[in-house]
Amino acid sequence: MSVSCCCRNLGKTIKKAIPSHHLHLRSLGGSLYRRRIQSSSMETDLKSTFLNVYSVLKSDLLHDPSFEFTNESRLWVDRMLDYNVRGGKLNRGLSVVDSFKLLKQGNDLTEQEVFLSCALGWCIEWLQAYFLVLDDIMDNSVTRRGQPCWFRVPQVGMVAINDGILLRNHIHRILKKHFRDKPYYVDLVDLFNEVELQTACGQMIDLITTFEGEKDLAKYSLSIHRRIVQYKTAYYSFYLPVACALLMAGENLENHIDVKNVLVDMGIYFQVQDDYLDCFADPETLGKIGTDIEDFKCSWLVVKALERCSEEQTKILYENYGKPDPSNVAKVKDLYKELDLEGVFMEYESKSYEKLTGAIEGHQSKAIQAVLKSFLAKIYKRQK
Amino acid sequence: MSVSCCCRNLGKTIKKAIPSHHLHLRSLGGSLYRRRIQSSSMETDLKSTFLNVYSVLKSDLLHDPSFEFTNESRLWVDRMLDYNVRGGKLNRGLSVVDSFKLLKQGNDLTEQEVFLSCALGWCIEWLQAYFLVLDDIMDNSVTRRGQPCWFRVPQVGMVAINDGILLRNHIHRILKKHFRDKPYYVDLVDLFNEVELQTACGQMIDLITTFEGEKDLAKYSLSIHRRIVQYKTAYYSFYLPVACALLMAGENLENHIDVKNVLVDMGIYFQVQDDYLDCFADPETLGKIGTDIEDFKCSWLVVKALERCSEEQTKILYENYGKPDPSNVAKVKDLYKELDLEGVFMEYESKSYEKLTGAIEGHQSKAIQAVLKSFLAKIYKRQK
Repeated sequence: MSVSCCCRNLGKTIKKAIPSHHLHLRSLGGSLYRRRIQSSSMETDLKSTFLNVYSVLKSDLLHDPSFEFTNESRLWVDRMLDYNVRGGKLNRGLSVVDSFKLLKQGNDLTEQEVFLSCALGWCIEWLQAYFLVLDDIMDNSVTRRGQPCWFRVPQVGMVAINDGILLRNHIHRILKKHFRDKPYYVDLVDLFNEVELQTACGQMIDLITTFEGEKDLAKYSLSIHRRIVQYKTAYYSFYLPVACALLMAGENLENHIDVKNVLVDMGIYFQVQDDYLDCFADPETLGKIGTDIEDFKCSWLVVKALERCSEEQTKILYENYGKPDPSNVAKVKDLYKELDLEGVFMEYESKSYEKLTGAIEGHQSKAIQAVLKSFLAKIYKRQK
Repeated sequence: MSVSCCCRNLGKTIKKAIPSHHLHLRSLGGSLYRRRIQSSSMETDLKSTFLNVYSVLKSDLLHDPSFEFTNESRLWVDRMLDYNVRGGKLNRGLSVVDSFKLLKQGNDLTEQEVFLSCALGWCIEWLQAYFLVLDDIMDNSVTRRGQPCWFRVPQVGMVAINDGILLRNHIHRILKKHFRDKPYYVDLVDLFNEVELQTACGQMIDLITTFEGEKDLAKYSLSIHRRIVQYKTAYYSFYLPVACALLMAGENLENHIDVKNVLVDMGIYFQVQDDYLDCFADPETLGKIGTDIEDFKCSWLVVKALERCSEEQTKILYENYGKPDPSNVAKVKDLYKELDLEGVFMEYESKSYEKLTGAIEGHQSKAIQAVLKSFLAKIYKRQK
């Protein structure tokens, strides 16, 4: 099936769900905060378009001529995809479409551009699903997105490892099917491969720092923390969506190293927020109870604490960090308060914001500024 | 570092190990059986060249500028690669170099061609290591290549899953570093991606047929067996090495569907031999004790037995297949003898050979005939 045929399919499925004039969504514009106050109807439309593209992509994969499915295996993949790919918040995926629109500076997207930017967004969602399915096994996690982790579903077990591999391979099937004839195809494939490598490398440092041998806080430092979050999270969550949009817009990524740097810094800032919220946010607002202290995580907070501790305080941290007992956790939290880590975070947050906006406003392209500002607006001073 | 620079590196490392005139290895020629009777010195030289290329590739990966290694993580990857990639029989990898030489029809390979064909051979070895590391976790295996499976090594455990991902990603780093400027780069990347998908799909059918739910022989058939072995083994072990050599020789793979078909058929024949030898070979010669019957494997033998069983014999098979007790295993083996599966296999073997040689000799290119014949000669009537 050719790309145009897929767009027809998309048209068909979309027409069932939403009026056809919504297919040509207007650019969202880029001023800071606008995204928060605009009416949510356009977002809802985008999300339903996005979900329709998922159905098209899934159907393609379930009828991929490179493999002879049995009925049983087709059902397996169908269920596995719905369980692991479709159920996320879709922020990363949707941000490809948002970014591409901003790069088009108010020009309507063609039906094909809508489809292709959604498809790239889904590739990132597939990539994330692949990481999460495997990370959950490695971390021996229990739940994910409010349901049991995939490997804990009866009759799945270690088959989940192969499902992870399948998810990863689906990305390249999607890219090949829909982008093979694009001039930027090879850059797209290289991009996904490079970001996948970087994410796996970040995960490696995280795993061998956090789990290997004895629990030892001496291994934790700001430099290790930065590497873990930069490689494990920032590249695929922040840089990848924008890089996809840039390629679709005909840009050469080698000319946008500055954009990459800003997005990677934003990703690091995002993860520092995550670490902060895990300890200091209201669990009601956050939607979960943080356990970084119990889990001996290489959190920004513990790293900052280690930097600021007196000898005696260091001893308290070593004695209480990474233990499940609430009294140990409380002692760590008390120490964090004593060291004014809340204040340290506030200062970090405002300095990061300043630095990021400075870098963004120094950029020569207004369209790219808009993309970067829209990312920053989504995360600055977030409470969850 | 550019390709030419790598070749210099290769030259340096090789010069330490073997005389430089061996770098220009002559074509091995293609007549059937020649490979078996020729002196082994050329093979030894090729193998040591091949191993030197491994050192170059590993060193590149350990200093990949896409990631900031810590000392600890660099040591981890170094050890992981030596443990999982270097220690195999290297048949698949070496066959890329052999095939490329045959395609060059007796012309000396340049130093760069030697390096590049070895690098592609190593990509296949990396791919195999990636599959084996993860398969061993899924199958809960104990040993591999005479040593504990990687995930059973102390302090590795489930980190092995991420190591598998790293192995997979290394392939694309090698391809990008050494082939990015080649006209066939995009086809090479697509090829590795397609074969990886097919292998994962074969593994999926194997896993869900063999492990899902209750042990049920009714799920086994020749059609399922063929799909498992074709996708799980034949593409990456037989087609991939030749496809790599064809791309290096400037060929368009779409013009060689017939070559793919012959190699896939050869891969299926190879796996049927494997299934046969698991039960009927002398364990001394085979180097291991087969356990397909105990393990409830979807073996060619059980599938053929099911085809030929009377109602009563079927009952015996259902009652005894997949049980660890030697008395159960003995009953299955007796039944196999009663059904003359040895004779059935002999007939299958000679028919396969006939069909394969017929297809090979019908090919218009003598060079490609030589490649295919050299593969067939390596496996026909093998005893281990």
